Parts: sequence; structure tokens; C-alpha cells
Amino acid sequence: MAKKQQNAISPTRGQDYPEWYQQVVRAADLAENSPARGCMVIKPWGWAIWENMQRILDRRFKETGHVNAYFPLFIPMSFLEKEAEHVEGFAKECAVVTHHRLEPNPEGGLVPAGPLEEPLIVRPTSETIIGAMYAKWVQSYRDLPIKINQWANVVRWEMRPRVFLRTAEFLWQEGHTVHATAEEAMEETRMMLDVYADFAANVMAVPVIKGEKTPDERFPGAVSTFTIEAMMQDHKALQAGTSHFLGQNFSKAQEIKFLNADGQETFGWTTSWGVSTRLIGALIMTHSDDDGLILPPRLAPKHVVILPIYRNDEEQARVLEYARKLADEIQSQRFADERIEVELDDRDMRGGEKNWFHIKRGVPIRLEVGPRDVEGDAVFMGRRDLSPKEKTSMKRPEFVASVGSILEEIQKTLLERATSFRDAATTKVDSLKELEEYFAPVKEGFEGGFAYGHWADDPAVTETLKKMKLTVRCIPLDGDEEPGQCLITGKPSAKRVIYAKAY
Amino acid sequence: MAKKQQNAISPTRGQDYPEWYQQVVRAADLAENSPARGCMVIKPWGWAIWENMQRILDRRFKETGHVNAYFPLFIPMSFLEKEAEHVEGFAKECAVVTHHRLEPNPEGGLVPAGPLEEPLIVRPTSETIIGAMYAKWVQSYRDLPIKINQWANVVRWEMRPRVFLRTAEFLWQEGHTVHATAEEAMEETRMMLDVYADFAANVMAVPVIKGEKTPDERFPGAVSTFTIEAMMQDHKALQAGTSHFLGQNFSKAQEIKFLNADGQETFGWTTSWGVSTRLIGALIMTHSDDDGLILPPRLAPKHVVILPIYRNDEEQARVLEYARKLADEIQSQRFADERIEVELDDRDMRGGEKNWFHIKRGVPIRLEVGPRDVEGDAVFMGRRDLSPKEKTSMKRPEFVASVGSILEEIQKTLLERATSFRDAATTKVDSLKELEEYFAPVKEGFEGGFAYGHWADDPAVTETLKKMKLTVRCIPLDGDEEPGQCLITGKPSAKRVIYAKAY
Repeated sequence: MAKKQQNAISPTRGQDYPEWYQQVVRAADLAENSPARGCMVIKPWGWAIWENMQRILDRRFKETGHVNAYFPLFIPMSFLEKEAEHVEGFAKECAVVTHHRLEPNPEGGLVPAGPLEEPLIVRPTSETIIGAMYAKWVQSYRDLPIKINQWANVVRWEMRPRVFLRTAEFLWQEGHTVHATAEEAMEETRMMLDVYADFAANVMAVPVIKGEKTPDERFPGAVSTFTIEAMMQDHKALQAGTSHFLGQNFSKAQEIKFLNADGQETFGWTTSWGVSTRLIGALIMTHSDDDGLILPPRLAPKHVVILPIYRNDEEQARVLEYARKLADEIQSQRFADERIEVELDDRDMRGGEKNWFHIKRGVPIRLEVGPRDVEGDAVFMGRRDLSPKEKTSMKRPEFVASVGSILEEIQKTLLERATSFRDAATTKVDSLKELEEYFAPVKEGFEGGFAYGHWADDPAVTETLKKMKLTVRCIPLDGDEEPGQCLITGKPSAKRVIYAKAY
Repeated sequence: MAKKQQNAISPTRGQDYPEWYQQVVRAADLAENSPARGCMVIKPWGWAIWENMQRILDRRFKETGHVNAYFPLFIPMSFLEKEAEHVEGFAKECAVVTHHRLEPNPEGGLVPAGPLEEPLIVRPTSETIIGAMYAKWVQSYRDLPIKINQWANVVRWEMRPRVFLRTAEFLWQEGHTVHATAEEAMEETRMMLDVYADFAANVMAVPVIKGEKTPDERFPGAVSTFTIEAMMQDHKALQAGTSHFLGQNFSKAQEIKFLNADGQETFGWTTSWGVSTRLIGALIMTHSDDDGLILPPRLAPKHVVILPIYRNDEEQARVLEYARKLADEIQSQRFADERIEVELDDRDMRGGEKNWFHIKRGVPIRLEVGPRDVEGDAVFMGRRDLSPKEKTSMKRPEFVASVGSILEEIQKTLLERATSFRDAATTKVDSLKELEEYFAPVKEGFEGGFAYGHWADDPAVTETLKKMKLTVRCIPLDGDEEPGQCLITGKPSAKRVIYAKAY
């Protein structure tokens, strides 16, 4: 009788991708739903990943000339109304504060009391409240540019929340800048898109396509929205970050104006850009497998876990002494110019269970050390990018000397694997029929991928795509400048766009 | 005619202390009020101080065995009701979310729509929502202790907001722990109080008195509340951090229970502890003078600013080359085990104006370098802890070699100065008459200080103090164990408490 292959995560990706995702989150203890509807609790292992993302992104923002600040959680309702498209885009998902205290209810419990004269909106994004401050701060061209970022929580009411991907409250950073010229603002918009794309590829090991959004998909109030788009393992696209050129739309609505060098009053040119805890969802769905989370080393809270194995007190003493020394040696090594984080897991727990605990949490390198390894001055290494069964014995000094480069190699492997995966699920389509066939459901539950095809900005296109549950992800910046005809309308098209199903 | 002494801040501390505070905040560009009532905008220089506080505190939390996580902004209203004293304490200052979208108002503008079945409270503190999660996570004594911290924004509606000191929204960290025994929970409570006291003294250079709050001043729902109390330059006390032993009050209200080693169901023992952006207010009011902010070097976003002085292009080239080299040399030095942050301020601005810009922002060391300094291989140093006029010429190599120890010296001086100031405004009182006299208004606008006197827990005491606008700050942990009689009731008292006016 053939032994059945067992995986740590059930169902597998092929069986039920959305449920697999939830189970990976649970098995890695990253986050869970909270009693406040639509809001998640980010647990310590998930939070440590977000801290790493924050630290690395924050450094890049500072290197590109930005400073951090903090703006209020609440936005007066009237502020939202100033930019017509903006309020249209966010009105349906605003949490509204209407009272400022609670009173005992004569029938028991409490009731809201102290009604506010003007309701306050819990920020869904901060263009309007930050713009109101910028209008005060900007007087002269000498005050420009203003390049400020904030790390904050925002709320967009969600009817169908999914942890990390779509939650009522999420955490993000939002950069907001003002410039004296359109050129400079566009340069900033594109520079931050590059920062995001580089972070995705080289830190998250998630390859992304940089592109511009079509008018339907623009940020409400923006002149143009740029995006980085990643492909998940179910072949669906995930928008991982956006950078908006806002033109003078917000500065006119909010009177952000200045005297230019010639003494003329001019409206500022603004941008905004953000990434959120959604990136953790992208990370999970790009790399993880049917045994759970796989973390790129650059974001792993722990790079190496040491699992001591012993049967009695005498062995325990020898093995732990060896393991502690090993941990110290590894910590003195560097990876990506940072400390290598090591955990010596000496909890009282079955060896197999402990090993799987760390596999499911995605720790890049596991080292088993038992009495025989102590004797042979060796370690028994498992790499999270390889099968759990594939383990290698290495001499201790050899491992210590190469741990940094092994982590580099894992990082590189994950990016290559994700890139190949995406490229294999990418095609060109030249007719509506080809588009339909490409997105016809496939047996394994995964469907389609990225289809490069011609397109025109037309209501008929929007309608057809809506019926097909397809979206235009972006007009790729690096795409071929090869003209053609829109797949749906036959209208002239300058460049292929990416059609895909999307999160 | 005697030249009138000019100060950068008007009014001075002696003229109008509360207004002086506002002007220091403005002159240092730390923060300002926002259009969302009671909420502040923390500007880049203020935020950079908070980032330094966060980084150093976060490291200490991790060193003492805590991990970070993140819990929701919203708390279902019914959760607050579970602990009776707790809801009593916070009901009057809760921001309440009652709707989840906006609709066009037929009369113009927008109106809240989509009423929630159960209103959500914007967290004023997170015991109840975190406790609900802990109740799920804790099953067995093996799950204990849980030691989690979160960095978050909280909202407590304020009728009389004052930037940093009392704002509707503020930022803080809140630690929440669960333990198997009362002893362990009390040990945690006291350990975190020590962490706060050490941070205040050795990082903020703010001396504090550790003590226990009297029952009237306890955190709503706590068994005991410990505090660190600092004295501001107007002689008023400021509560700078608190650590609460919650006993089993919250675990009983929320069913945080576990099976102990003997298989018996037991309620957990919980603690919570926090410090907030209020610390920035304490920092300002402890050290600053009539020329503006003074920053202890350990929290200064910039330690050294270099101010190049030149009259023509030829001088400019020489001076800037020298200044850049100097900046590099300083950056290679260390202070408090961290990088020394240097700014070379080459903005086109009058020399005097630029000098005062950095004085008002509290930069610890200013270095003027002009052609004569280049020639003499020297720097002209101003220290923020000394008078603006008191400047010293030093040889460049000598300055570079000693910059770390000069910063240490400034740090030490600030703590010593604040400690002497506090001690000079501290007394013992042995009768109600003495207490009244001590707090009788004094000519310069400052009044009283810390009065150590005997006390009893009695409604008559509460009433008398209320009339005198006095509070009991704490029962000092290190106070003399010298029994006596309550100043007001004559009842026996085991230990003197601190009477003071307070923020």
C-alpha cells in the first residue's frame, strides 16, 4: 500500500486556495479575527514581520528625502466633501463618530450620548486632513517641497473582510508631498513606485509589474495612479502598492497655494503613495506551500532556529552547551547588513512537533543538533525552501561561515521561483475569444493568469470585463510600444494592458 | 542705558508659564492643533523625538521578555460594560462610532448612514478587547505568562486639550500581561515601573519619584496603580507613566482562566502599563528655558549642527569642504552606543537667525565654522545647556575626540539640574496650616512644589484637597517608614505621601 503524502496544511492549495490561505495564517499564528467586526488582531509573529517591513521601508523613505510626522485619526465630515471624486470614492465605507460619551441606558447597558455638532470620520486615507495642514504650512516656493510620511491605522468599512487582504482597520504608511511643479511631483510619484517595486522584489522576493491604472481604477481624486501588481499562486493579481499623481486637484480643493519665485500665486502639485499590512497577505500567497508559511530571509523575524535533541541529562548538558555556542557564532555573522536572528528552542515538546512548528512559521533555516552532531562537530540543516525531508549534514565551522550566503541563496531562490511561476502563467491574447478561453476555469481550481492584450478606455469594455469578473490591472510601464486594436471594441490601442482576476 | 536682556521665547516662564509652554512648542516646531477638535498634528521634529523614545523603550520591553502585537482600534460597546469600575472611569470620554457610511443629504452635504447594530468605541485603553483575546488564548498554565505590548493611538475625549499634555487622540504603548500567580503579576507591575523610572531619569534626564497611587487615583478597575511623578518648572507634578496590578478583576470579568499544574481551573492575574506622547510634554517642561527647547542628547534627533559661515565663493568652498570633513569625523564617533547624528545646515539664511533656529529646537551642540576656524583647524562651539553667549573655541581633533563625552556631560548636567530644581522645591509639612502656606501663591507665578506629609484614606481628605486644588500624587515607594497623623483628619498614617498641584 502506497504511503499517503501528508502535508501540514489542510486543505492544500489545489483543494481550496482561499481556505488554504486561512489555514496558513492560523498555522503560522500570524493573525486572527477580532470581536470588532472586520478588524484583525495581528499576533506577535505576524507583527514581527510587519516591524521588519516597516524598518526597511522607513529607511528607504528617509534615504529618498522624506521625514515622518503624525496627523489626526479623525477627519471632520465637511473636509471629505471638498474633493468631489474623493468623497464619492470613500463615502460608502466610512466609520462615523457621532457621539463623545456613553450614558447609562434606563433599560440597562449604555447608550451613546453627547452628540457632536459635526460628525468625525475615522480616516480612510488622509489627503484631506493633511492637505488642510499643508495649506497653512505652504506660503512660498521656499517652503517646497514638503515630503512627509506617516505610519498609521486607517479604516474602510468592509462587508467581506479577509485577514491581511481586506480588513476594516488596517495599518499602512501614507506619503504626502507637495511640489512647485508638475514635473517634480510626477518624478516623486514615479520614484516612490520604484521604491515599492524594489522593496517587493528584493526584500519580499515578490516580483511585481509596474504600471499605470486605467481611469476606472484610479484613486478617487487622482490624475494618475501607478501600481505594482503581483501574481498569487492561484494566478490572481494582487495590487501591492500604489503611488498617485494628484495634479492640482487636491491643492485646489484645499487651497494649498504659494508665491512662486516670480511672486505669482500658484497651486501646489501633490502626490500620495502607500503600502499596507496587505503586503503580508501578498507575502503569504506568493511563497507559502502546503506545509505552511515560507518567509524570505530578509523579512523573517528569526533566520535560524536551533532544535536540540537529547534523551537524558548528560546528553542535554552537552547538546545545550554546543547549541548555545553555535547560536553565538551564528549571531556574529551578518546577512543583508543586519544581525542574524537565532532562536534556540529548548521547549519541552516532541521533536517532530517542534520541527513542524517552525516549518509552519516559515523559519528559513532549521538546525537539529543531537549528541552525534556534537561528536562530529556538525549540524543537521533543513531549509524552508526545500522539502521538509531534504536535510543536510554540515560541519559546524562550514555552516557558520556560510550561513549568510545560504540565507542569500534562499532569498534568491524564492524570487526566482515566484518569477518563473508568474511568467509561466502569463500569455498574450489577441481576441476576446482568446481572453475568454484563457480565463475559463481549469480543473485544479486555479484559473488564467496575466493576459497581455490590447484595450481601449470605453464603457463597453468596463461592462464586458465586469461580466467576465476580469479587471485591467495596469498599463505596464515597461511594456512593448506595439500598437493594436482593443480586444473588445476594436478601437485603436497604443499598448497592451494586463487582464487578470484580482484580489 | 542698560541693554535689555532679550529671550527667544515670549512670554518667559516667569511671566506666563502655560503660554511659555505653547510658545516653546511653536518655536521648536514640535506640534500644532488640528481642525479635528482636540487632536494634534505631531510635526517632523516632534515626531523624531517620539521615534527615539519608541526605539529605546521598545528595546527595553524586548529585553524584559515582551513581544509586540496589534489589537483593534474599535471595542464593541458591550465589552466596556463588563468591568463596572472600568466603564465608570471611561464612559464620559468615549468617541462612539455609530454609522458605517455617508449618504448625500437632500439639503446638501452628507449625513451618516448605515447605523451599526452595536456601537463601537474608539479604544480609550485596550484592557477589554485584549482581555477578550487572552481569554481565548489562555487554556493551561503552559500558555502563561503572556507578555505583549502594543504601540497604538487611543482616544479620550478632552474638553480642554493642551498639546502633548492632554489631547483627545494620543499615541502610547500599552503592555498587557497575564500570569499564573499574584506574586508574578506584582513582580511584572513593579519591573515595568522600574523600566519607566530608569528611562525617565537616564534617557529623558527627568528625575521621577516612584510611588503607589491612593485609591481615589487608581486606574479604573485596578487593584493597585503605581506611578512615576515628575516636577515641572512651575512646581506642578506630572504623572509620566503608570503600571497597574489588576489582580483578577479583569480576568474574572472576561473569563481569562486556565488549568493550573494540578488541573484546577484558575483565573489569571493581569497587569497593564503605559506611557504616552505626554512624555514629550514632560520633557519640554522639565528642561526648556526662555530661549526654547532643550533636548537631552539621548533623545535629540540631531546631536550636532554645523553652521558654516562665509562671505564669498572662495570662502564658501573652503569652509564647506572643512565642514563636510568635520561632519564625517563626528559621525564616526559614538554616543550612548549609537551613531552621533550631525546636520550641516547650509541653508541660505542670516547667520544669527540660523543659530537661533537650532537653539529654539534644542540641538545639544552647535558648531560655527568660518574661514578663521578653517585656518586654525578649530571649531566654535555653543552648548544648549549653557547660555547662548557662552561659546568656546576648540581645536578640531580635540572636539572630535571628545564629542561623545561632551554629549554625556550635557545629559548628566540636565539630570542634575532637574534634580536640584525639584529638591529645592520639596518640603515636609506637618500640619494643614503648613500645607496651606506652602501652596499659597508666590509672586513669580510658581507655587508650592512637592510637600511630603501624612495622610489618611478618608472622604474628608478628598474634599479638603479638592477645595485647595491639591492632589495626593503618590505614596512614595522609597519614602521613610515614619508613622504620624494625617494632616487633615489626624488619623494614623504609616507613611508620608506627596501633596502637589498637578497636570
